[in-house]
This record gives sequence, structure tokens and C-alpha cells, in this order.
Amino acid sequence: MDFTLTKEQLLIQKMARDYAEQYIQPLVERIESENAVPKEVIEGLAELDLFGMPMPEAYGGAGAGYDTYVVALEQIARISCGPAMIISAHTLGLGAINNFGTEEQKQRYMPKCCRGEHIASFAFTEPGTGSDPKQITTTAVRDGNHFVINGTKRFISNGTYPGPVVLFARDQENGKITAFIVEKFCEGYSVSKPWEKVGWHGGDLVDIYLKNVRIPAENVLGERGYGYPILQYGIAFGKIGMNAIALGTLLAAYEEAVTYAKEKTHRGEPIAKFQTIQLRIADIAMKYEASRWVAYRLGCLANQTKDYADFAREAAMAKVIVAENAFSATRIALDIHGSYGLMTDYKISRLYRDAVMGPQIEGVIDMQKIIVAGSILFK
Amino acid sequence: MDFTLTKEQLLIQKMARDYAEQYIQPLVERIESENAVPKEVIEGLAELDLFGMPMPEAYGGAGAGYDTYVVALEQIARISCGPAMIISAHTLGLGAINNFGTEEQKQRYMPKCCRGEHIASFAFTEPGTGSDPKQITTTAVRDGNHFVINGTKRFISNGTYPGPVVLFARDQENGKITAFIVEKFCEGYSVSKPWEKVGWHGGDLVDIYLKNVRIPAENVLGERGYGYPILQYGIAFGKIGMNAIALGTLLAAYEEAVTYAKEKTHRGEPIAKFQTIQLRIADIAMKYEASRWVAYRLGCLANQTKDYADFAREAAMAKVIVAENAFSATRIALDIHGSYGLMTDYKISRLYRDAVMGPQIEGVIDMQKIIVAGSILFK
Amino acid sequence: MDFTLTKEQLLIQKMARDYAEQYIQPLVERIESENAVPKEVIEGLAELDLFGMPMPEAYGGAGAGYDTYVVALEQIARISCGPAMIISAHTLGLGAINNFGTEEQKQRYMPKCCRGEHIASFAFTEPGTGSDPKQITTTAVRDGNHFVINGTKRFISNGTYPGPVVLFARDQENGKITAFIVEKFCEGYSVSKPWEKVGWHGGDLVDIYLKNVRIPAENVLGERGYGYPILQYGIAFGKIGMNAIALGTLLAAYEEAVTYAKEKTHRGEPIAKFQTIQLRIADIAMKYEASRWVAYRLGCLANQTKDYADFAREAAMAKVIVAENAFSATRIALDIHGSYGLMTDYKISRLYRDAVMGPQIEGVIDMQKIIVAGSILFK
Amino acid sequence: MDFTLTKEQLLIQKMARDYAEQYIQPLVERIESENAVPKEVIEGLAELDLFGMPMPEAYGGAGAGYDTYVVALEQIARISCGPAMIISAHTLGLGAINNFGTEEQKQRYMPKCCRGEHIASFAFTEPGTGSDPKQITTTAVRDGNHFVINGTKRFISNGTYPGPVVLFARDQENGKITAFIVEKFCEGYSVSKPWEKVGWHGGDLVDIYLKNVRIPAENVLGERGYGYPILQYGIAFGKIGMNAIALGTLLAAYEEAVTYAKEKTHRGEPIAKFQTIQLRIADIAMKYEASRWVAYRLGCLANQTKDYADFAREAAMAKVIVAENAFSATRIALDIHGSYGLMTDYKISRLYRDAVMGPQIEGVIDMQKIIVAGSILFK
Repeated sequence: MDFTLTKEQLLIQKMARDYAEQYIQPLVERIESENAVPKEVIEGLAELDLFGMPMPEAYGGAGAGYDTYVVALEQIARISCGPAMIISAHTLGLGAINNFGTEEQKQRYMPKCCRGEHIASFAFTEPGTGSDPKQITTTAVRDGNHFVINGTKRFISNGTYPGPVVLFARDQENGKITAFIVEKFCEGYSVSKPWEKVGWHGGDLVDIYLKNVRIPAENVLGERGYGYPILQYGIAFGKIGMNAIALGTLLAAYEEAVTYAKEKTHRGEPIAKFQTIQLRIADIAMKYEASRWVAYRLGCLANQTKDYADFAREAAMAKVIVAENAFSATRIALDIHGSYGLMTDYKISRLYRDAVMGPQIEGVIDMQKIIVAGSILFK
Repeated sequence: MDFTLTKEQLLIQKMARDYAEQYIQPLVERIESENAVPKEVIEGLAELDLFGMPMPEAYGGAGAGYDTYVVALEQIARISCGPAMIISAHTLGLGAINNFGTEEQKQRYMPKCCRGEHIASFAFTEPGTGSDPKQITTTAVRDGNHFVINGTKRFISNGTYPGPVVLFARDQENGKITAFIVEKFCEGYSVSKPWEKVGWHGGDLVDIYLKNVRIPAENVLGERGYGYPILQYGIAFGKIGMNAIALGTLLAAYEEAVTYAKEKTHRGEPIAKFQTIQLRIADIAMKYEASRWVAYRLGCLANQTKDYADFAREAAMAKVIVAENAFSATRIALDIHGSYGLMTDYKISRLYRDAVMGPQIEGVIDMQKIIVAGSILFK
Repeated sequence: MDFTLTKEQLLIQKMARDYAEQYIQPLVERIESENAVPKEVIEGLAELDLFGMPMPEAYGGAGAGYDTYVVALEQIARISCGPAMIISAHTLGLGAINNFGTEEQKQRYMPKCCRGEHIASFAFTEPGTGSDPKQITTTAVRDGNHFVINGTKRFISNGTYPGPVVLFARDQENGKITAFIVEKFCEGYSVSKPWEKVGWHGGDLVDIYLKNVRIPAENVLGERGYGYPILQYGIAFGKIGMNAIALGTLLAAYEEAVTYAKEKTHRGEPIAKFQTIQLRIADIAMKYEASRWVAYRLGCLANQTKDYADFAREAAMAKVIVAENAFSATRIALDIHGSYGLMTDYKISRLYRDAVMGPQIEGVIDMQKIIVAGSILFK
Repeated sequence: MDFTLTKEQLLIQKMARDYAEQYIQPLVERIESENAVPKEVIEGLAELDLFGMPMPEAYGGAGAGYDTYVVALEQIARISCGPAMIISAHTLGLGAINNFGTEEQKQRYMPKCCRGEHIASFAFTEPGTGSDPKQITTTAVRDGNHFVINGTKRFISNGTYPGPVVLFARDQENGKITAFIVEKFCEGYSVSKPWEKVGWHGGDLVDIYLKNVRIPAENVLGERGYGYPILQYGIAFGKIGMNAIALGTLLAAYEEAVTYAKEKTHRGEPIAKFQTIQLRIADIAMKYEASRWVAYRLGCLANQTKDYADFAREAAMAKVIVAENAFSATRIALDIHGSYGLMTDYKISRLYRDAVMGPQIEGVIDMQKIIVAGSILFK
């Protein structure tokens, strides 16, 4: 066992941290109010290789592994969750192509994505699915060398950025779920106005509408009728980035709490001198400690795993642990701020809005627990 | 012991509920986006006697007691916290005049306030005080039959509404804290731009600036140099309304959760059929149950108490119990909504922003606990 | 609403408290090690009317209501849970006769029970039932003017004391559940060795075996085939006493914590001076505060209720709130004791063993929540 | 980063697990009732190298590192905490000699200890110290080539076993704390009757009395007057074993819960089929997951650390995380058992008594948090 970051990881962590502090921090207010990430941030993150961090070098990636990806993404989310959410959803979609795509598909889609010129999406959810793939109603009809796709997908991240979306539809010939690579903004593709979210401003979230979208048959991802393993991959791998974002929020709340405790005075003394404050600082620190190894380990597992069912259990556990710790740590950090923490002038008030995203996104808490228990009790 | 509302209370509860549903509900979106309560709402609440609910009939009040006040305010907050916050801060200031004022002061200030034509405030906090009265720096200098007041007060509710503010300053003659009745918008009175808060939109919160404000000597509230008991009253009685607001948020979250659980379906069944959802509904219900008797009881105690130190302990306990239950119940209700709960289209996302106000406002949680423990351990 | 005990209740509370301190306290160690309550304690409690507190005076009871019963029982449990458990189970069985019995049955069984000469039981659970009445396998076969009963009942309190047991069996003629009054130690009645429990020592708990027990037909309680409402009564009313016991443990833990915090010194100062300790004392105090009104209110409701389904929901909520608060308050009180709290020389170590009983006994927590949710969602 | 056990660790883990199941399991009831560990268990553990697991091979140890020690000890505690407590306290005392002793001291004391023929102790606490070394009153008076020691040490593990005890006393010449190696049962050494504890039966805990105990001057451990770093080592390193024990209890509770959920039926179905049970199983699993990496990592850190202050913070965090998770997981496992879990026939009732030891032993929770916060805020 080894609980230390490699030199390379420390370097990438530092670069991500420095970039976020220097270039994203000054834009945070704008990201919050416009609910959009400025183009120069996307470009900056691309230069840091953040759009291809865990992807193979052969296809333009950094080949740095999912653990390094978590370490780096945490530092971005520490400053702003919006850009981190874009990377997370992108990596999920891109990873599907990398894991299940043909050589040709990889050659075609991955390099541009890894360079951040294209941004990938992953589209499973529909208004009626919840977490249940059996409810998919989007249809794919074979028409010669093409498929024609119709339907609506809900809550799709990066739906407004050009690039490939890995999209699940029910094949009308056999009733089975198939995954397709669709190029966003092709004919028949349109999007709703963005959903307004409590937190993670800047990360776009739209419904996408597919009206007679024609795609060539070679854009089937994996085997026709066998979309389920790709979905399983998605449900599990989506949590890797989510954890990194939650961890980043936790870290930011931690630092805000420490700073405030040292600077805010009461009767001439920093409030850090009071045991009440000390207990809360320790609670936050321990939540960070108990979360990060779980989040990093999930990244390590992702580098090796071939068994998505097994990985799904680990991902579900990690999600609950990290997201819930981030949530409660942020609330504690807000408590340290007292009434000031309620004011939008204080960063912690934004973190409070961000912190509730993690537990709900990528599968609610209870669903994760049912997955975990099922894997334990009925395997 | 009797745990049933009187007929009069049930009637007032129903009137408040009906009014809020009929007249405030359609304005909620406007209140949220403009961060201001429309004038007609103030007038409507005034007609319901909500600006003088627990005040004696002799001075224009409804004479209905603080328990009835809690019951009614809960129903207003159930629909929107902003108007409820205005009433709560107003009742606090007005109650100070009622409890400590001379006959003449009461005659002069209370009737207009009870009619909602004037709205009262209570101003203790300063940028440097925290919860510590010893840090008050606002000065009052005697000048013949007048006092001249200079200083800044922070986070003052209703600071932008005309009416009396009960304001604490340090008497420069003896160094002691004295309470004064100051008429807002008199010469030398000005306010900052409103603080933007995470929740409770519509409830105004400003810093107020006092620059050579001259007030007649008869505007001392209570005895000169003896502001402390009035402050003690304020710290304790402020929590009565806060609890009612938190309880209203809890109730709203409860109802949202039940409605969503019954309407949202999964595989054709309402999600209410799942034990996971049932457990959460029960948790919310129990938090409401454990909170409301505590909140109502505090109202009952307030009707009788003369011992503000004793009452302060009960108020502090009630505040923590109710505010924390409201907070966690709201989070649970959001969980039931899954990702949808994160979208600002859903009411629960607003409740999430509202629910964090209670624990921080009117003295943070830890401070309450220290008060409670002190009363138990060192009395 | 009125949150104050009547003079009569205060008097009975004091009598119970004094008796417990004076007469039970010196026997506690013996109760713990022998796992039995000395006869003189039973007699003493009987003199205090504790075996008939909420029963009508017409049948030998004190006619003091269930709220008074809770208030008194709390004081007994504060010193020792064993005697309180005996009274609680007894009152449950006796209440069934009072609520559902014929005039003749009441005349015959109640006076002796109210005097504590006989001790009642209530026997529903079987090895295979869990909380599910459909699983009852104990049989009742009509034989002329008698019924012949066979079966095993599990975890029956007071099974070793003479007196009536209200016992549920499946009527072999119609397959329906019927309640019978069986006199313990009649022919065919025998008991297992007592179950050894983690806590509540002195409260006896046995399995009872019924082998061809013959009872006269007039011993059917309520109507033949209609045992279900009596069972429903039992499930709900059993929680009244359980809550009182949990509340007593909470109160004892509270007092132990305060005493220890004041007496234990660190560097010459009582540890009560540390904020860490103060926070924990406040947490305990608030758990007591949030629990007692719920427990007392349940007693008040029990005095009036005729709707057992409705009461069942209230009882289930109260049980979870009170039992869980008692549990966590006791853990906090133990924390205040540090390592000393782990030593059996310290009372808190016993309270820790007692505190876990409440959440499990009379229906586990989750089951209560499912009941509560069902009543809210599907009524 | 690498979150996988080495082959050697997996082997040692398996050996410890097999031994505990095969040889300790049949003796558990005896260990519980006699509150003593049979001699053959000590010998068996010695054969497994468990008395010298992390000690250098040069002095008879296994040289396997503290991480391996945690992994192995967890498996012992999974079956019985008593033997694990003996090893933990022994390793603490022995580690002090290894880290601070002279070559001669190591040669003299370590091999016998590593073979389990002698069992070491570590004696800091006194009736008046709490966690505060400044309160030490045990005295050491220099007398030629000897020291004469007088005083009482409280709650000393392994005090009844022959072997060295690392003991702290105040040097009367300079008032400073010095550590000494005292051979237990030398002249002047005596012990109290064992403290009876709620849990961890078999692990002996006594007060030790030192009456004019004469030891040669070369038995000073480290430098005279510089006991503080050794104490700091002790406070931090003591938690390594404590965590392993808590983790073992957590693991045992986890397994009991899973087994019970699968075997216990309700209406013919295992209760594992209910979502209520599934949620609780998942909660336990996640508490294990969030704890073990923290516990294992602390072992890894211990292998390298030279900075005891830094390590103290990590140890304090790990202690709170692991001990509290073990506590609450055990409570959840008990809940799954319902009323049965309260009966001493069921293993979970013992685990409930064991689970509360961890949070209190080796420094209470709040003290750990204050240490953690101090290290963060004031470094």
C-alpha cells in the first residue's frame, strides 16, 4: 500500500492549482452570474491536458490515469465547479469511446476531444427514466446504412458544445438498447434553454431533442443491441469526476473555514482560539481526510477495472462517502462564518449552493446504497 | 398539559394560511427575483393583524399571545420567508417598546406599528460586536434635552421601512449601554445597499449609519444605562419568530416531499411505494413533530415570562432544535426530488436556500449551546 | 396549549422520584447482578398506585391518565429500568382488558392487577412473527365451553409473574386472530429460562409455552375473530411506557453528565469550564427537551384516542424521537466521562447498556418509520 | 498511490484470520465471562509473530511494518477484542523501547517481548492526569546508580503480565518528566484488582502501584528529563492498534449484519430483500470502506514518520474516523437484528459493548479534535 502521490501527480496537481488560482479565480463572479464558462478557460484547461488526462497518448491523451485526473480536477473545482463539471461530463463521454469504440472511431473522435476542440457528452437520462434504463423511449430505426434517431434526453451536460455525444436509444428492430455516437448540432439536433441549477454555475445542462437525426451505421458504439455494458460503464465512471468536484468543494470550504477562523476576531482574539471553532475545523479536516483516499482510490481502480459491476459498487460507495462529506463539511464551514456566511459576498455562500449538487447528481444517495447492498447481499 | 390549539388559534392559523396561499403565493417569484416584498403584501398582512399579533389590544394589538403569533407566522413562512422575516424583526422591536416603554412611548409608537403603517426594527449588532454587547462602539452623547448618536449598525432588518428602531449605544457619560427609540429616516440616518442573502429573499437587511442623529431625551427606552435587560430580551425574543419561520420552511418542505413522492412515478408506480422514499418521508414528519411543540411552547413561555435569563435558555434550545430540524428536513425533501430538486424551477431548491438561514441568524448554533450549558452548569 | 404539569402531576412525579431514590437506588446493584426486581420494590410501586395509574378508579386504578403515568414512570426508570419495564408491560396488558374487556372481565382481573398483586402481560410475538400478525401460529381450538390453546410466545415480559396475559392465537375454526385472557401458571403454561438482555436488567423476558391450555370461552377478549384491533392497540400503547423508560434513561444520563462535568477537574478547574464539555451538555439538554414534550403529548393523546390507527402513527413517531434521542444523549454523556465511563463502577456504563433497548423493543426504528410514512402517504 | 495489500500482507492477514477463527472463536465465551485471555491464546498469537509484527528482525521482530500489523490485528479483533487489546498495548510499550532505547536496552528487552514471553506496557495516565502530562505526580528520586520511583498509574493494560513497562515519572531533581523501563513485578510493584469494563473483556486493565521501586539508572529510556517526545510517541502510536481493534469490531458487525439479513426471514423471504435492510447494510459497508484506508494509511505513515507532532495529528484524525464509524456501524448492525440483537445469545450484543471502547480509549474524541485543530490553526 502506498498513500503518496507520485512526483508527476504532484506536478500536475500544482499546475492545475496554479492555473485555477491565476486564471479562473478572476472570472468566478462572471461564471456565476452568466452561468457560462468563458472560452479562454476551456482553452486554458485544454493546454493543461485536462480534456484528455486519463486517455491514452496514442489518441492524444495525457495517459496519466484516472487517479491523476481526480487529483487535477479537484484543484479546478476548488476554484470553480462549472469548468470542472464540463471536464467531468466530457471525460465520461470520451471514455466510453475509448473503452468501447473501434480503432476507427477512436482515431476519428478522440484527438479533437483530447485537445478540447470538441467536447463530449453522455446521454442516457430521459424525462421518464430516472435511473432505470428500461424506461428509455428514444428510438433508433435502421434505414439502410443509417440509423434514424428520435427522442428527448434530459439533463445533458455539454449539450451546447460541439463534439460527440454517446447516446442511448432503443433499437426498433429488436427492442434492445444500443449506444450511438452522435455529432452534436447535426441536422435534427436541438437543445432546450439551459436548466437553472442551484449550484455548479457554468456547467451547462440542457435537454436535447433529436428529430429524425440520421447517423451512419458505423456510429454504433460497441455492438448493436448491447448498450447495457456501456451504460453500466457510464453509471460507474461518471462518479469519478463527480467525486473530484465534491472533493474540490470540500477543500475550498476547508480553506475558507480556516482562513475565516484565523482572521475573524472576537474581543481582539481570532475566533480560532475558541474550542467551539476548533471542533468544527477538526470535523471539516476529518471529512476531507476520510474522503480523499476514497476518491483517489476510485481513480486507481478505474485504471485497472474490467469488471464494471464490481466497479459500480465501489463507485457508488465512493460517491456517497465523498458527496455527503463534502456537503456536511461545507455546512460546518458556513457555521463558522455565522451570519456573514449567508451573504453572497462571502465565497462560502456559493459553496453551500455547490455542495448540494454532488449528492443528487449521477444517481441519488439512496439509489447508490441499494446498488451497494445488492452487490453485497445478492452476488 | 394540553397539546391542542384553541379555536381562536385554529381560526387565525387558517386565515394566515389562506391569505398566504391566495395572495402571497402568486407573488413569490417576484419576491425572489426582486428581493423585495410588494406593498400590497404588507397591507394584507396588516389586515390580518400580523403586525400586532401578540401586542396588547390597548395599543392596537390583537392581544393573541406569542403562541398564536408563532402559529400564524409559520403559515406565512410556509409560502414565503421574506414577509415573515419582516414581521419577525418588527415584532421584536415593537415588543421591546411594549415591554420596556413608558406609557407615553407605547401610546406614541405602538398603534401605528400594530397597524403595519410603521415597521419596527431592533438594532444591536455592529461590524465588531458578533454576539458580544461589550463591543458596542455606537456612541450617545447627552446634549441638553437630547442625545446625539453616531455609529454603524450591521445586518438590520426592516432598516429601509419607516418606523421606530430600538437602538443600542454606549452612553459617553457613564460608558454604559443604553437603548434608544430612533425614528428611521430622521436626519442623519442612512442605510447601505441591501445585503444579498442566500435565502429569505424579500426580507430586507441593511447596515444603518447614524451621523449626528439627534433624539429627544425622552426617547431613552427603559432606564438610561440599563440597556442590558432590553438586549437580553431581544436576544431571546428574536428567536420566537425565527423558529416560526424555520417551522414554516420545514412544513413547506414536508408538503413538497409528500406531493413529489405521490406524483413522481417510477415504472408506473408512484415513488411513494418505495421504502427508501417512505423512510425519508417519515424522517421529515418526525422532524416536524419534534420541532413544532418546542416552537409553540416557546410562544407560550413568552406570554408569561418575566425572567429573561431563564427564557433565554429555553429560546436558545428551541432555536437549535427547530432550525436544525428544518435544515435537515429540507435536505431530505430535496433528496426525494433527486436531480430535479437542484433546478430552480422546483420550489424545493428555494427552500434549500431558505433553510440555512435559521441556524445562522439570531445567534449561531454553537453560541446557543454555550448559553444553554452556561445556564445549566453555572447557575 | 398548555405545557405545564398540573399540581397533581407534580405531586405524583415527586412521590415517584422520592420513592425511587430512597428505596430503589440502594437495590440497583442487586437488580443488575441478579437480573430480578426484589419483591419489596413491586410492593412499594404498588403503594404508589403505579400498577394502576391510568386505569379507572372504578376498577381500582388511580384514574390519573396516561400523561401522569408517563411522568411517574420516567422517574422510576431514571433510577432503574427493570421495575419500570415491569410496570410498562403490565399496563399494556391491563389496558387491553380495560379497553376491550366486558364488565365482568374488568371486575375480575383489574382490581388485583391495579393493586400489584397480579401482574399482567401482553403476548403477541412468536419466534416467527417479527412484527407481522399474519405469521401467528399459536392455535386456539374450541372445545365446548372452552378453548384449547397451543403454541409458543417469544420475548414476553412479566411471563414469570402470576396474573393475566392477553394472548393472541389463531382460531382454528375461522383462521382468524382472537385475543384471550389466559391466567399465567394455569395448567399447560410454562416458561423458558429468562432471556439475558444487554440492558433493562430486572425486567423479566421469557418465552412462554402453552400446551393444551384450557380456558373458558368467556375469556375471549373483545369479539371472537377480532383480535386485530386489540393488537393494534397493543402495538401503539406499548410505546407509551417504552418512551417513559427511554426518557428516564435520558434524564439519568443528563444528570450524570452534569454532575461529572462539575466534579471532575482538569488542572484544578471543573471540566464544565471547557467549551467542548459545554457543547455536549447542551446537546443532551436539548435532546431531553425535544423528547419530553413528545412523550408527554403521547400520554395526553392516549387519554382521548379512540382511533388506534391514527394513534399508532403518533406513537410510532414518538417512539423513534424519544428512543433515539435517549440513545444518543446517553452516548454523549458517556463521552463526557472519558475512559471512566467504560468502567462498570460508573453508572453511565449501565445507562449505555440500557439506552440501546428502547430503539429495538416494541418494534424496530425502521418499522416505525414505514408505519408513519404509510399513514401519511396512503391514507 | 497503491491501494492493494502486498502478497505478504495477504498471507499474514489470512493466517491471523484462520488462527482467530479456529482457536480463539471457541474460547470467546470463556474470555467474556472470565474476563481473561487463556494462556494458549497468547502462545498462539506469539507463534504468529503478533507480539513483534512491526519490530525489526534484528531484535526478534517480524519486520513487517505497522501497516501489516494493522491488517493482522484487525483479524484478531474481528473475533475477540481482548487478545487484540493485549497486543496493542504491548506493541506500544515495546515500540517505545525500539524507537528510543539504547542498543543494550533493545537487546535486553525486545527479543523476549517479540516472542510473547514478556508482555510490555506503557504507563502514563494517573488518577489526576487526564490527558495532561503536566499533572504527573509519580516521582523518581536519584539514589546513586539507581532511581527510586513512587506513585500510582491508572488504567494500565497488561499490568498483570510480566515484562517491561515504560513508565513516566517526574524527576525530583529537575522537575522534568523522564521515561523509565521498569520490570513489572519487581519489588515494590503491585496492582489493583482489574477494572471491569463494558467491553473488550480479556484485555486486562489495572492500576499499578509503585512503592519505592528501585531501578538501575541505565533503565532511563531516552534522555533523562526528556520524556516528552516518548510520551508524544505514545499518544500517537497507541492509536494505531486501537484503530485496528475498532476496525475488527466494525468488520465483525458488518459480517453479522449480512449473515442475519440473509438468514432471517419475514413472510418466507430473507429480510435482505427489504430496502430498509439494504440501506443499513450499505451504510455499514461504507463505514468500513471509509475507515479501512484511513486505518491502513496510518500504519504506512508509522513506518516512516520521524515527526511525532505531525503524526499525532494524523493519528488523532484516524482515531476519530475509525472509532466513530465502528461505533455507528455496530449500532446499525444491531438494528438489523431487532430485539434479538439485545440478547446476549447474539454476538452483536457483545459487539455493541465492544464498540463504545474505541471512542473513549487512548484519548476521548473531543481531545483528538482539539489536537487536530491546533495542528491546523496554530502551526
